[in-house]
Amino acid sequence: MAARSKTKEKILRTALALLNNEGEVNITSVDIAAVMEISPGNLYYHYKGKDVIIAELFADFENELRQVLAAPVNKPMALEDNWIYLYIIFEEINDFRFFFLNLTSLLERIPELKPKFMRLLSLMQNTFERLLSGLEASGHLNFRPGEKQILSERLTAHFTYWLPYANLRGLRGSPKTIIHEGVYAALTQITPHWGDQSEPYAALLKDFLDEQVG
Amino acid sequence: MAARSKTKEKILRTALALLNNEGEVNITSVDIAAVMEISPGNLYYHYKGKDVIIAELFADFENELRQVLAAPVNKPMALEDNWIYLYIIFEEINDFRFFFLNLTSLLERIPELKPKFMRLLSLMQNTFERLLSGLEASGHLNFRPGEKQILSERLTAHFTYWLPYANLRGLRGSPKTIIHEGVYAALTQITPHWGDQSEPYAALLKDFLDEQVG
Repeated sequence: MAARSKTKEKILRTALALLNNEGEVNITSVDIAAVMEISPGNLYYHYKGKDVIIAELFADFENELRQVLAAPVNKPMALEDNWIYLYIIFEEINDFRFFFLNLTSLLERIPELKPKFMRLLSLMQNTFERLLSGLEASGHLNFRPGEKQILSERLTAHFTYWLPYANLRGLRGSPKTIIHEGVYAALTQITPHWGDQSEPYAALLKDFLDEQVG
Repeated sequence: MAARSKTKEKILRTALALLNNEGEVNITSVDIAAVMEISPGNLYYHYKGKDVIIAELFADFENELRQVLAAPVNKPMALEDNWIYLYIIFEEINDFRFFFLNLTSLLERIPELKPKFMRLLSLMQNTFERLLSGLEASGHLNFRPGEKQILSERLTAHFTYWLPYANLRGLRGSPKTIIHEGVYAALTQITPHWGDQSEPYAALLKDFLDEQVG
C-alpha cells in the first residue's frame, strides 16, 4: 500500500470512528469534514466522496485481517492461544464494525468490494478448518466425516453476522461484552466435539469463561 | 387482517415474486405496475409506494411464521417431524427471501418493522429452545447447563442469516438445494449433543440426508 499523507490518515481515522459509532447511513463526507474542522472541498481534494473513504478503510481491514488469518499457517498455536485467537479475529471485525452492520447495502453500493469480501470469507473458512484440524490431530477434538468442513463454514457465518445479530436481538453491554459473547457462542459450537484429550482444553476454556464474568 | 381486494392480493403476489427474484434494490413500484399491466396511478390508489407494499408483505410473513412457530407448542412433535419442521421454517423464510437478503437496509428504511422483526426472532428462539428441551426430555439429546439456550440462539441467527451467507459464499444450486444445505448446517449443530437414545434419531437423520442427495 502506498504511504499516506498525515491528512489522509487522519481523515480515515475520523471517518472510521464516525461510521462505527454513529451508523453508516447517518454519516456524510460533510460530517467527516466538519468533525475535522476542514472544508468539504479540502476533504474532497484528498478523497472523492464517502464511498472512496469506505473502500480505503476496507483495504485497511482486509490487510489487517489477512495478517491475523495467516498466523496459524505460519506457526502452529499452543492450545491456550486458540481462544485468544478467536478473540483477536472478533476484535478486528469490531474495529470495522460499520462494515458488518451494513454488509448487504455496502456491497451493493460499492461492487468492487464484493469479490474482495468473498475472498476474505473463503480465507476465514480455511483458517478455521486448519485450526480445527490441528485440535483434531492432537486428540482434543473428534469429528465425523464432513463435520469439520461444515463447522468451519458455520464459524465463518457466525463471525460475519454476530454483530448485526447482537444488534437485532438487542443484546446490551459494551463492545467488549458483545465480543465476549460472540467468542463464547463460537466456542460452544466447538466444545461438543471434545475428544479424549479434552481435559486441559476444558480447564483452559473454564478459565477463559470465568475471566469474562469477572 | 382485513380482507383484501383481488387487485391488492395480485399486487402483493406480483411484488413478492419481483422482489425475491430481481432483488429488492432493482424493483420500483413502477416496475410492479408494468408487470401487472396497470398504470402507476392505479397501483398508487391501492398502495402508496413500494415500502407500503413491503410492510404489507412483512405482515403476511409474520402471520405465516407465527403459525409455524406455534405448532410445537400446540402439540408435541413425533421425532421424525423435527427435520421436516426445520425445513418448513426455512421454506417460509425462502418465500420472503428478499427481506432476509436486505435485512439491515429494510429495517432502517421502514423502522416500524424493526420491533416486529425483533419479536419474531425472540419467538423463533423460544420455539427452538422448546424443541431442544423436548428432545432432551426424551433422552435423544444431552446438554450441559446453558448449552440449550445458546444453541437455540445460534440456530435463530443461522436461520436469519443463512440465505445472505449462502449468497455471499457463492453457493450454487436451486433454492431447494440452498434450503437443504441450510437445514443440514442447522442439524450438524444439534447432532453433537446426541444422547443415549440417539440411535432412532441417527437413522432418521440418515434417511433425511440420503433423500437430499437423491
